Amino acid sequence: MSGDQAKREYSAAVLVIGNEVLSGRVHDANLPFLAARLKARGIRLREARVVADTYPAIIGALDALRAAYDYVLTTGGIGPTHDDITADAVARAFGRRLRPEPRAVEILERYYGDDISAARLRMANTPEGAELLDNPVSMAPGFRVENVYVLPGVPSIMQAIFDGFEDRLAGGAPLLARTVTAVVAESRAADGLAAIQGRYPEVEIGSYPQLRQGRYASSFVVRGIDEAKLDAATTEICALVRSLGAEPEVFDRERTAKEDRGD
Amino acid sequence: MSGDQAKREYSAAVLVIGNEVLSGRVHDANLPFLAARLKARGIRLREARVVADTYPAIIGALDALRAAYDYVLTTGGIGPTHDDITADAVARAFGRRLRPEPRAVEILERYYGDDISAARLRMANTPEGAELLDNPVSMAPGFRVENVYVLPGVPSIMQAIFDGFEDRLAGGAPLLARTVTAVVAESRAADGLAAIQGRYPEVEIGSYPQLRQGRYASSFVVRGIDEAKLDAATTEICALVRSLGAEPEVFDRERTAKEDRGD
Repeated sequence: MSGDQAKREYSAAVLVIGNEVLSGRVHDANLPFLAARLKARGIRLREARVVADTYPAIIGALDALRAAYDYVLTTGGIGPTHDDITADAVARAFGRRLRPEPRAVEILERYYGDDISAARLRMANTPEGAELLDNPVSMAPGFRVENVYVLPGVPSIMQAIFDGFEDRLAGGAPLLARTVTAVVAESRAADGLAAIQGRYPEVEIGSYPQLRQGRYASSFVVRGIDEAKLDAATTEICALVRSLGAEPEVFDRERTAKEDRGD
Repeated sequence: MSGDQAKREYSAAVLVIGNEVLSGRVHDANLPFLAARLKARGIRLREARVVADTYPAIIGALDALRAAYDYVLTTGGIGPTHDDITADAVARAFGRRLRPEPRAVEILERYYGDDISAARLRMANTPEGAELLDNPVSMAPGFRVENVYVLPGVPSIMQAIFDGFEDRLAGGAPLLARTVTAVVAESRAADGLAAIQGRYPEVEIGSYPQLRQGRYASSFVVRGIDEAKLDAATTEICALVRSLGAEPEVFDRERTAKEDRGD
């Protein structure tokens, strides 16, 4: 990693495309996956949107997000049926022609053999100049246009495609975190936490309340790229917790809410 | 319900506020809950966004969403700590003063008794003129400003508050759905489905592929408010499925992906 990369922060947005998420049919699982994997690469997920399968919704969101963040990853809407309009919407957003990508046509023809059809060949349609993203599972590829990565909605396929290209995503310094958990109400720690946040503007301190066996407990998460500041802020949070009569437990990463609950 | 209400479609957006969702710490459960409950009231969820705990992110999203949809429901960021800035951000978005709401102060003072503190009283801060939304669980209320409903992020508390005010949300005609499942690849049904969608522009047909015991299967979901059109489109989809040599199974609602998988 170059010195420049280490200093620069990389940002990303996820755009989930699909009426089925907005109707409650599907509980989206792609956002948590991408959040964790991007974080591990030093890319900060800054925003996510879920939009319907319509051209104005997709194009409007794409235009806003691709201008604001280093990377945009879309999921959903790239299958063979009439409601799969993502590729066409991406082409329109970039003002490019949608056309059958020759290598994608070849991949699909080889995979489906005699069962190839016009509907299946629709999955080879990509905006002119797009880079294909290989799909080792069901062959229909994802693709990239400039900083927009277009992926399917089915989690196992989306993940397999992501696995294939993630090494090519430039990231910044790894995003580090610490978690301090304690049996203390967050409202009792609030003033002290605000003071610590004020002294360490380079890190981001989050406070998450929970009930533990009927008692108020909290997780305080410190996030940032500067390990020394992270550790210093964490030490101060531990001292704060002790001053409130509780015993802190420290983890050198961001614990999930599930882990806090002991699920 | 008046005739006007039955004809008009009501729309909503959900704004999830919290670094903890973008960092992968929390797997958001509020969106599926709100999607289902709004649908049952004849309110169509059209968009969702997840943004970080920063003023520009929250205010920018609020301004876009409250102009575009009948209702905006926010979740997260209304606790007692420094990272809870939602109430202040909503006040700024509406150009209103943030101030302690007298009834909210009274509720918190009664609930906490001698344990009341400045941090806990922060939870009484709401934009001037906001309507309180009662919180039967932990007392700190949500609130409404114009078409924006501000709710906490903890699912059980968010749901209890939503239960309390949902009867006051005007909705349109109930959103109806049918699901047709069949052991047939969606790509084989694609041309026929597109033709049916063309004949029934009043309904929205979604096609969702899945693997069932290693075989390609599909769920075709028809959504709309006109029951006659819904049934006519469903009948045509069944005929299409049979013409492809498969047996359709029909459900008079939108099945979830979990139900399709038999989870």
